[in-house]
Amino acid sequence: MEKERIFELLDGFKIETPSWGYSDTGTRFGKFHQAAAASTIKEKLADAGTVNRYTGCCPTVAVHVLWDFSVGVDATATAKLAEQFGVRIGSINPNLFQDQLYKFGSACSPEERARQHANRHVIDSINIGKAVGSKLLSIWMADGTNYPGQDDIGARKQRMHGALRQWHDAMPAGMTMLVEYKPFEPAFYHTDIADWGMAYLYAQAAGPNAKVLVDTGHHYQAQNIEQIVAWLLDEEMLGGFHFNDRKYADDDLTMGSIDPYAVFRIFHEIRNAAELHGRDVSQIAYMVDQSHNLKPKIEAMIQTVMMAQELYAKACLVDRKKLLDAQSRMDIVDGESCLRNAFFTDVRPWLVEWRKKHGLDGDPMAVYRASGYEAKVGREREEARAARGAQAGNSYA
Amino acid sequence: MEKERIFELLDGFKIETPSWGYSDTGTRFGKFHQAAAASTIKEKLADAGTVNRYTGCCPTVAVHVLWDFSVGVDATATAKLAEQFGVRIGSINPNLFQDQLYKFGSACSPEERARQHANRHVIDSINIGKAVGSKLLSIWMADGTNYPGQDDIGARKQRMHGALRQWHDAMPAGMTMLVEYKPFEPAFYHTDIADWGMAYLYAQAAGPNAKVLVDTGHHYQAQNIEQIVAWLLDEEMLGGFHFNDRKYADDDLTMGSIDPYAVFRIFHEIRNAAELHGRDVSQIAYMVDQSHNLKPKIEAMIQTVMMAQELYAKACLVDRKKLLDAQSRMDIVDGESCLRNAFFTDVRPWLVEWRKKHGLDGDPMAVYRASGYEAKVGREREEARAARGAQAGNSYA
Amino acid sequence: MEKERIFELLDGFKIETPSWGYSDTGTRFGKFHQAAAASTIKEKLADAGTVNRYTGCCPTVAVHVLWDFSVGVDATATAKLAEQFGVRIGSINPNLFQDQLYKFGSACSPEERARQHANRHVIDSINIGKAVGSKLLSIWMADGTNYPGQDDIGARKQRMHGALRQWHDAMPAGMTMLVEYKPFEPAFYHTDIADWGMAYLYAQAAGPNAKVLVDTGHHYQAQNIEQIVAWLLDEEMLGGFHFNDRKYADDDLTMGSIDPYAVFRIFHEIRNAAELHGRDVSQIAYMVDQSHNLKPKIEAMIQTVMMAQELYAKACLVDRKKLLDAQSRMDIVDGESCLRNAFFTDVRPWLVEWRKKHGLDGDPMAVYRASGYEAKVGREREEARAARGAQAGNSYA
Amino acid sequence: MEKERIFELLDGFKIETPSWGYSDTGTRFGKFHQAAAASTIKEKLADAGTVNRYTGCCPTVAVHVLWDFSVGVDATATAKLAEQFGVRIGSINPNLFQDQLYKFGSACSPEERARQHANRHVIDSINIGKAVGSKLLSIWMADGTNYPGQDDIGARKQRMHGALRQWHDAMPAGMTMLVEYKPFEPAFYHTDIADWGMAYLYAQAAGPNAKVLVDTGHHYQAQNIEQIVAWLLDEEMLGGFHFNDRKYADDDLTMGSIDPYAVFRIFHEIRNAAELHGRDVSQIAYMVDQSHNLKPKIEAMIQTVMMAQELYAKACLVDRKKLLDAQSRMDIVDGESCLRNAFFTDVRPWLVEWRKKHGLDGDPMAVYRASGYEAKVGREREEARAARGAQAGNSYA
Repeated sequence: MEKERIFELLDGFKIETPSWGYSDTGTRFGKFHQAAAASTIKEKLADAGTVNRYTGCCPTVAVHVLWDFSVGVDATATAKLAEQFGVRIGSINPNLFQDQLYKFGSACSPEERARQHANRHVIDSINIGKAVGSKLLSIWMADGTNYPGQDDIGARKQRMHGALRQWHDAMPAGMTMLVEYKPFEPAFYHTDIADWGMAYLYAQAAGPNAKVLVDTGHHYQAQNIEQIVAWLLDEEMLGGFHFNDRKYADDDLTMGSIDPYAVFRIFHEIRNAAELHGRDVSQIAYMVDQSHNLKPKIEAMIQTVMMAQELYAKACLVDRKKLLDAQSRMDIVDGESCLRNAFFTDVRPWLVEWRKKHGLDGDPMAVYRASGYEAKVGREREEARAARGAQAGNSYA
Repeated sequence: MEKERIFELLDGFKIETPSWGYSDTGTRFGKFHQAAAASTIKEKLADAGTVNRYTGCCPTVAVHVLWDFSVGVDATATAKLAEQFGVRIGSINPNLFQDQLYKFGSACSPEERARQHANRHVIDSINIGKAVGSKLLSIWMADGTNYPGQDDIGARKQRMHGALRQWHDAMPAGMTMLVEYKPFEPAFYHTDIADWGMAYLYAQAAGPNAKVLVDTGHHYQAQNIEQIVAWLLDEEMLGGFHFNDRKYADDDLTMGSIDPYAVFRIFHEIRNAAELHGRDVSQIAYMVDQSHNLKPKIEAMIQTVMMAQELYAKACLVDRKKLLDAQSRMDIVDGESCLRNAFFTDVRPWLVEWRKKHGLDGDPMAVYRASGYEAKVGREREEARAARGAQAGNSYA
Repeated sequence: MEKERIFELLDGFKIETPSWGYSDTGTRFGKFHQAAAASTIKEKLADAGTVNRYTGCCPTVAVHVLWDFSVGVDATATAKLAEQFGVRIGSINPNLFQDQLYKFGSACSPEERARQHANRHVIDSINIGKAVGSKLLSIWMADGTNYPGQDDIGARKQRMHGALRQWHDAMPAGMTMLVEYKPFEPAFYHTDIADWGMAYLYAQAAGPNAKVLVDTGHHYQAQNIEQIVAWLLDEEMLGGFHFNDRKYADDDLTMGSIDPYAVFRIFHEIRNAAELHGRDVSQIAYMVDQSHNLKPKIEAMIQTVMMAQELYAKACLVDRKKLLDAQSRMDIVDGESCLRNAFFTDVRPWLVEWRKKHGLDGDPMAVYRASGYEAKVGREREEARAARGAQAGNSYA
Repeated sequence: MEKERIFELLDGFKIETPSWGYSDTGTRFGKFHQAAAASTIKEKLADAGTVNRYTGCCPTVAVHVLWDFSVGVDATATAKLAEQFGVRIGSINPNLFQDQLYKFGSACSPEERARQHANRHVIDSINIGKAVGSKLLSIWMADGTNYPGQDDIGARKQRMHGALRQWHDAMPAGMTMLVEYKPFEPAFYHTDIADWGMAYLYAQAAGPNAKVLVDTGHHYQAQNIEQIVAWLLDEEMLGGFHFNDRKYADDDLTMGSIDPYAVFRIFHEIRNAAELHGRDVSQIAYMVDQSHNLKPKIEAMIQTVMMAQELYAKACLVDRKKLLDAQSRMDIVDGESCLRNAFFTDVRPWLVEWRKKHGLDGDPMAVYRASGYEAKVGREREEARAARGAQAGNSYA
């Protein structure tokens, strides 16, 4: 494939970074605090803008309604703030797990108050989305139970159907609802949206503007994620991704850090669907959802974005004509070689060139580090926290 | 719950045993041969009849078309043979994996000959089903690939859709197609029907008489099988079960031998759907699919059937009024106790009574062992094999 | 086995409850607060005493040095406080994960300050243990790395060896060090004590008073825990247990709530080692380590203790003479039946009798609930928290 | 690192191919036969010689005593045959699973006849090893049980200890025993050598010439294999590898086909131990153990060997000075980058150069394919099989 075509594909490959990826997160055993961690939405947008400035491919920021917006504050002000930092508001993420009311679930809770609370929050989130011009409502629900007998799985399923339909219908034209699945955590016995099949059926029942969101860390061990992606593409139900990597559970490590070939294969299926099966892949939302609890947050994000671009470029390189030919001859070794040749090609020089073409530095990490940004905001934010009398809190992010 | 009601439910709980469960099977590392293992369909039916005679709840036998029927032999003769042994032919199982043609798949193979061969075999199977009056066509496909790039996942999906639709339409009125899923083995990179979600969508696309078949051993580790069962019940897409147990992969151990509480929870969801959600559960096919490569085959089957009855009876015992009350109060400990109290109740005396009521011995295993059946058929079958010049023996490499 | 013998074995079966099991814990997504949750060591000991009062088999309490002891406070005062509530201090648990210094590990950190901090804390813990007469130093280390290349696995191993040897030698005579393993979380790429083999080699190298601690939730999926227990017993390296249950990862659910047969098999191996292999099992420490983030804490603990007793009693019931006979005849069905017959025997009436014999109520849960304890301490503790101006904090427990 | 040094390391990197890798193998569901599959030891050695001729780094062949040697045939004749094909006999692999006697295990069987049979076979294997000058006795035991209660885990452990000690002592000076572990299959409830810890303790107890053999496919999902390798290196107990890849279980796919970064990390730990920790890694046996049931066997082997060389070369490229520096600064991103930079470097041109330097063609696969070898031996072997009246065919049931 010619370089021009790869560059064109890279031009169209945008990655959304999450506001919560810039703030302190951790495990249930605690958080390791970073001086430069963002606390306010302004700080988060500043960081997201910084990542976009150096990488040139992260124009939007996923926001978390509970943590990033306040009652009574004009959401459009936040959108303007984003603009100042050279980014836009991307997907809107309601929070349906942190309130004490959600002890037994949100939309699936047996308790009506919890369901109503969830409902109000999602409606508020949709309104914020409208106000800031977001096209994506990203729904992750922690609903589930911890013990056999705790609740009725079938009854909960009906409650979920009802909620999703209602939210779907409350969305303005042009907004898409992404339904995320997760097999476990924080619920340990059963999760109401446990796998892609459940997310698919919920989305289908909710209405035509609901799609499935694939978080790469939300799968059983050994599950073939790229096959799920190929299926959702074939069914025109793939809404987007939350990218991260993992070794055991939902470890939220940086993308490609454990198994880069697996990520490459996901991109390969997307390119395959586009080039061989005529699928429209232009609306797929590529979003990062990681918990950089040890790596410096902005460095982790730049590293992630660069890795994503490299793996995507490798997937674009697959010689699909040769691949089709090998597959039709049932030559496994040749078919596999098409993927491997692409994967083991060193595309880093091309990305340097692509960046330079776009007026960016070829080595975003190096220039970011040289900029002194982290040290500077580290000092400022420590002071701001001290001035506010803020203390490390127990919110997840 | 009164004893009468439990007895009534047990009366309705029929378990189908598989013809192949009476013959020698093993692992890729070899088979351990048993003198009494059945080789011919007559021997298999005799064994199935024996199990039914002692347990009183196994009136049908799943047959495997490739191994149990011969071209040119009248299938109705086999049905009559079954009758002689006090059983009927149950589900019809085509074989879509053993022929050398299926190296790259059957219905999903890139090779047209393989697809046509599969097609002919399934049509033959449907005709056998018609001839013997079977109501179930049970489809397990080993289709998949071993390596990334081996074949196109999307193209294979389309081939599968086509085949299933065609087979669905070839079925006579009153026949149901069961679509089974399996995450891996014998294909190791991707399996064309890998999980319940794929089986569901294939079945839905095939037509109204296709349902999903749940083989308890065909899941990812940690997957919540009873939730899948609850979903399929709620969607009216549960066709039936292949029962067995496992520790790591598809180990095909006897049901309940590793995790009996998990099986109990599956039955609990079925009873829940019937009693609380008004679902019709009368058509669910309960079938055994195990590979008794160490246990004596008939003993293993009797043990399995007894275990199934015990766990089913325990699930019937759950006090659903109390359970609903606990769930509405969100009292996790009380809800869980409803399940535990049922599970830890010793129902064995009731089953003895139920058997006696039906003119059976209270201890099927003991009377079967006392009958000398195994030793007798062992001698006969060894001789028959010797007379046929049949040889065992399959080296791994 | 006669009832007297079972009762004798139950008399010897003591379960240690953890102080942190009475306080609010949760997941990384948050904690659901309970009014009656204990905050102070006094409240925790009061709760532990309550559990012991109703169950009669929980005479000791595991303490967590960081959360339960304060610098400058006389540890013996705490021991006396425990006595007032009818319990004693059991195992001493240092905390080697919560301090910000431990970002890259404690004993394995490349940073000397972190290693020294860990060292001082463990030495302090040993001194507290001495002061309160504890016989067990229970070491769980969260040490590990999140990314390939983050640190040198071999160098970390050497640092760990050094620390454990030093701590071993600092223990007074009669104290045992328990070395716990865990495959992942909070470290996600590698954990310095990832499995029983590593814990074994570390303990062996540390010295004769170090043993392995088996937390039932700290295993790979599909791992056979009872085999590990049998090995450690045979090698005389089993120190004790942290009991809990899980479905996917280290879910910290109440023991036996997901797979009671697995717990039974662990107890079976212990009784087997004692009765058939002449192993001394009297020093095994049975400890609970669960995170009751949804169930009321004391109810969860009582439920756990009752479940443990039932499963232990079932394991005592195994007819080992019959079992040995079946095994020598290589009769798998008979061997398995010995375990099943014990497991499916309803031992609850015997436990009622055992409790009455010891002056306890036959139904500890019912009398505890009737006592009004939870409501009472809920009110008191809410008030005390309000008076202290205490806020839900971000400590794990 | 300079090219010369990489070439030197590649010169020392020899890969042993297995005789059974050239013959038909499959899954329990059947074998797909290849015309060119080797049946006789002569054919296998011819194939191994072919692989070595094109790759230049596979001078030895692992042999399987049961399949490759016959009673009464002089083993040295086989060694001479190997020489004719330009290879030597490498590791000796006894077969302790295929005989009907091994139904309940080999060395661990409760049946004395089985244990004696195993013992004789291993002693015979050692004698063959002596005769052909092999330095490695490679022990994989399928021993285990399928059901709880089937046998006594502790008693089996003692039997295994006895056997391994006896075999260890029967080895001539200079021979090393490799003890392999495997968590499951063909035994499904427990495996007597289930993990590296058990293999380690067995090897240690057997004597100084016993080491652990790591088969990359024999691990729990999510287990960190490179950590186990680092541990065994640190303990001087790493004997060698059986290479293959997997997605779910012991899938025996070609090495690096699913997760090449994981293989790279294993090689990285080996180079790390050699270069930073002064470990002698020169005696590690690198062996392939795969089941090429779909790929053409020789192509699969050439592909595997090339992949192994590439991944090893990448691991040699890691800048360990930079890595150490990053680790001492606790800079996770920099440490990780050292590994990534090496992994994502395209080393294929270097390998072409290395091959040419050694008088080999730069593209072994292409020249092998061009040679027409497969078609030629395919014809010859089909004829030979026909002449022998040999039949393929092993039905699952």
